[in-house]
Amino acid sequence: MLSRTLVSAFKRQFSSSSVAANRAVVYSQNGNPSDVLTALTFPDLPPPKPHSVNIRFVLSAINPADINTIEGVYPSKPTLTSALNSSGLGSPDHPVFVGGNEGLAEVVEVGDGVHGLKKHDWVVMDKSQLGTWSTTRNVNVADIIKLPFKETDGLSKAHGATMTVNPTTAFNMLGEFVDLKEGDWVVQNGANSAVGKLVIQIAKSRGLNTLNLVRASVNKKPRRAGATRVLTYDDLKDRTTRSKIQEWTSGKDIRLGLNCVGGEANTAMVKLLGHGAHLVSYGAMSKQPISLPTSLFIFKDLTSHGFWQTRWSKAHSREEKESLIASLASMMVDGKLKAPEHEIITLGANESDEQVTQKIRLIFSDMAQGKYAKKVLLKLEDKE
Amino acid sequence: MLSRTLVSAFKRQFSSSSVAANRAVVYSQNGNPSDVLTALTFPDLPPPKPHSVNIRFVLSAINPADINTIEGVYPSKPTLTSALNSSGLGSPDHPVFVGGNEGLAEVVEVGDGVHGLKKHDWVVMDKSQLGTWSTTRNVNVADIIKLPFKETDGLSKAHGATMTVNPTTAFNMLGEFVDLKEGDWVVQNGANSAVGKLVIQIAKSRGLNTLNLVRASVNKKPRRAGATRVLTYDDLKDRTTRSKIQEWTSGKDIRLGLNCVGGEANTAMVKLLGHGAHLVSYGAMSKQPISLPTSLFIFKDLTSHGFWQTRWSKAHSREEKESLIASLASMMVDGKLKAPEHEIITLGANESDEQVTQKIRLIFSDMAQGKYAKKVLLKLEDKE
Repeated sequence: MLSRTLVSAFKRQFSSSSVAANRAVVYSQNGNPSDVLTALTFPDLPPPKPHSVNIRFVLSAINPADINTIEGVYPSKPTLTSALNSSGLGSPDHPVFVGGNEGLAEVVEVGDGVHGLKKHDWVVMDKSQLGTWSTTRNVNVADIIKLPFKETDGLSKAHGATMTVNPTTAFNMLGEFVDLKEGDWVVQNGANSAVGKLVIQIAKSRGLNTLNLVRASVNKKPRRAGATRVLTYDDLKDRTTRSKIQEWTSGKDIRLGLNCVGGEANTAMVKLLGHGAHLVSYGAMSKQPISLPTSLFIFKDLTSHGFWQTRWSKAHSREEKESLIASLASMMVDGKLKAPEHEIITLGANESDEQVTQKIRLIFSDMAQGKYAKKVLLKLEDKE
Repeated sequence: MLSRTLVSAFKRQFSSSSVAANRAVVYSQNGNPSDVLTALTFPDLPPPKPHSVNIRFVLSAINPADINTIEGVYPSKPTLTSALNSSGLGSPDHPVFVGGNEGLAEVVEVGDGVHGLKKHDWVVMDKSQLGTWSTTRNVNVADIIKLPFKETDGLSKAHGATMTVNPTTAFNMLGEFVDLKEGDWVVQNGANSAVGKLVIQIAKSRGLNTLNLVRASVNKKPRRAGATRVLTYDDLKDRTTRSKIQEWTSGKDIRLGLNCVGGEANTAMVKLLGHGAHLVSYGAMSKQPISLPTSLFIFKDLTSHGFWQTRWSKAHSREEKESLIASLASMMVDGKLKAPEHEIITLGANESDEQVTQKIRLIFSDMAQGKYAKKVLLKLEDKE
């Protein structure tokens, strides 16, 4: 709950603005997003300080991890900002968190000492929890990466707005653990997930084969994305499936397994891995732990890792990160990596903060009920 | 069950020998050791072929994995031998497996082209499942490693007979996964196990601290072996234990966990590990799987491996293996690594094959009932 002071500060804020200038979706304490998120109008940003730029967000993604971040249970924490207002929410007296971790932005103004960035350049975030649910932000140049392509080159806004979380995860999981050669096989569960579909496409573009495990046989999405083979978890219970897989892989050991489900769907998948394989987990959709017979580790030389792009990012150089983004952007421009199916929700310039607050809270309450099958991208309109 | 032909061959064999010449404990088919093991007398070995030596076993260990090997469920398989007899068991018509994977032997005769080995040298096995439950064997020099010390140097027979399975495992688990520096901490469950006690001693000699988890608080064995700290699994349920551990480690992350139990004892232990830690499993005494929250892998960057000395041995050079054995033998001679508590069972030269068969079957039936708290070492007497 907002404190009495904050509520009155908040009311003061939105009642004074009929048409939004700049706006952010913020929260001042952790909790359920549909309780704590608030739209906040704030004045134009001052000119950027040296080595920083002012950016305007084109499209900002809502990711599942954003919910955990707002709830306060995600290991990667945002920092409070007091730079949005001189009084009220977002001021030094009442700092706020700006929501959002991923988004596509355009440079609008460049500070002194900034090289290699100019007005209208497209940029993505190179630091987690920067707060992308905002019309505009001032950011250090070290915290953003310039995209090598724009819309005129064939890179869509949706591509740009969803580049730094899932595609990087899919790309790095295929590259960081096993030295895969053309023709090698990768097995993954949750193959219909956003990352799962990216894994299929990136693997295909590298000449790798994917064996994709899904829940329902009717679901043809992995195949559409370029999956080599698709099996359901039920198929795995069939004794003949093993020999079918042997035939597909020509008896070649599968050395990489990607897991975002956990529980039985993972245990069943790991049995398909060959000697010396690596299991990489990046999610736990079943909410069940990873449970595996010890003998797999001892005698089959299984190694089990986790992958978290945030950690990868902290551990790698700027050059490596720029190169990663460039590789992904190239694949997108070349049509090898599709943007996720998405729905753009506009937070209109003419809506009041109260209206936008209601709208954003409803989005999260609908999301919690599974009403969004597609990725939700926010378009925060400003006065321009 | 032995086939009719084999039984008669076997009877012919032992009825013709009143005093044992050479003897081996063998089996011709997989099964319960107390059903399938048979003592077999065989003639003197011919002189060794080039690049081989004839060895006489001084003491041979019985390890838990031997039971699984005889049952046929262990991944490391012995090879059949037909070189023991010209007729009957152990002949080309009725090849047998000689039991035993670990033991100390003495060189008795050296073949042509053998360098660096002479009569009376002590050797241990460098290949798994060579068949150590025998008075004598002919072995390739590539399959054995000469010990740099003998009894006169302070290396006991029991040290030599138990060097290649548990001490190598303990040593390598401390060295292969995390680059541990003096003062670093290692946590292990099953700290009272044979390997657990070796881990404590090797860690101590390297200046590493061990946090040892055991079932019963009354058990002081890990402390006697040089454990830095000992806790019971029940202690871990106490909320104050965590801060106690923080105090012991001065807040330093524990980066290596060794697991031979699995199940809850492992899950509880893994929670004590710090960021980027490695869990190494080498046993599953609880017969429960390794079950861990996925978040530990993703956000705490846990990596879970298995360790199997047989695999290590295949993957490493002769020089590395000789160096490992030399390091362990030095620690033993220096009093830093005790031989396990053990019981020597003599299979006497004057006993008949039938008597020895009964004796060895009884040992395994008693073992299965947990009647041996100590390591059992076999002393197979020959006619000399």
